[in-house]
Amino acid sequence: MSIEVEAKAYCEDLLEIEERIKGLGAEFVSELEQVDTYFNHPTRDFAQTDEALRIRRAGEKATFTYKGPKIDSQTKTREELKVELSDGDAMRDVLLKLGFSEVGVVKKLRKKYQVGEFKVCLDEVEGLGSFVELEVEVPSGDQDEIARSRDDILKTMNDWGLSKIERKSYLELLLGV
Amino acid sequence: MSIEVEAKAYCEDLLEIEERIKGLGAEFVSELEQVDTYFNHPTRDFAQTDEALRIRRAGEKATFTYKGPKIDSQTKTREELKVELSDGDAMRDVLLKLGFSEVGVVKKLRKKYQVGEFKVCLDEVEGLGSFVELEVEVPSGDQDEIARSRDDILKTMNDWGLSKIERKSYLELLLGV
Repeated sequence: MSIEVEAKAYCEDLLEIEERIKGLGAEFVSELEQVDTYFNHPTRDFAQTDEALRIRRAGEKATFTYKGPKIDSQTKTREELKVELSDGDAMRDVLLKLGFSEVGVVKKLRKKYQVGEFKVCLDEVEGLGSFVELEVEVPSGDQDEIARSRDDILKTMNDWGLSKIERKSYLELLLGV
Repeated sequence: MSIEVEAKAYCEDLLEIEERIKGLGAEFVSELEQVDTYFNHPTRDFAQTDEALRIRRAGEKATFTYKGPKIDSQTKTREELKVELSDGDAMRDVLLKLGFSEVGVVKKLRKKYQVGEFKVCLDEVEGLGSFVELEVEVPSGDQDEIARSRDDILKTMNDWGLSKIERKSYLELLLGV
């Protein structure tokens, strides 16, 4: 169990942010098309419980992710469990057999950089526009460290001129909830 | 989706069977300790619906398997979906978060051979004894082919002197259901 401290903001000009973080010594990590399929529980409504269950496909890779409820009012901080899969389609079939239902698909082009302790994602999301996401993983789940990481992220967002913070997930934005 | 046509029988003397199949040109595949953790659904009782959900750990490998209800009265023929996992423990944690519960753990030493079209497993199951399992995979799910494979398996079991067929799973036997 690790805690993902994370915030995202709308961004009019991803190229400007890209130039800025390159100036800060950003290390390029990857550029990928990610197709995320979200599922709802057979009897629990994840929209109510603020959980998320996802199969992410990117190239040959598939990842299964569970996200717990957000535990912070300003950011997207939450527990996250990840498992790499040999076969995203077979996992989808298992979930459907178990009574889970597909609720939506989020497609995006994601450019990932590492900037100091931050993972920075520059996202072009189909149907939603452009966003910048900042993330720090706190493996310990230590509360002080989580608070410190959250403050760092929000201050950095502000420094970069990213003021339109969005706490909703891409899925929520797409579904208009 | 592939159909697993499968039957198993109690076996007093695994070594005798091993010698016999070696005489038939059996190819050794693997010898592994397998630890299988079975889960029940948050709201569905798999004992009633005749489904099974399992994380199998063998050495470094973990596999997630869903088995549908048995579709044949004499064998263990059923639909099976499999996904290789990077992390069996993380998948276990996800299942618990989703309200699935652990129902039992089956530990066994399994020697696997390929004998013509058959996968043959020689199993020593902790707390249950020794068994021989024969399996053929029918990728198409074709009904005639399933029936043919089932007959082949039962005839072969008979030829090998394995008369005490057991249709229950190791988990059912362990739980005494």
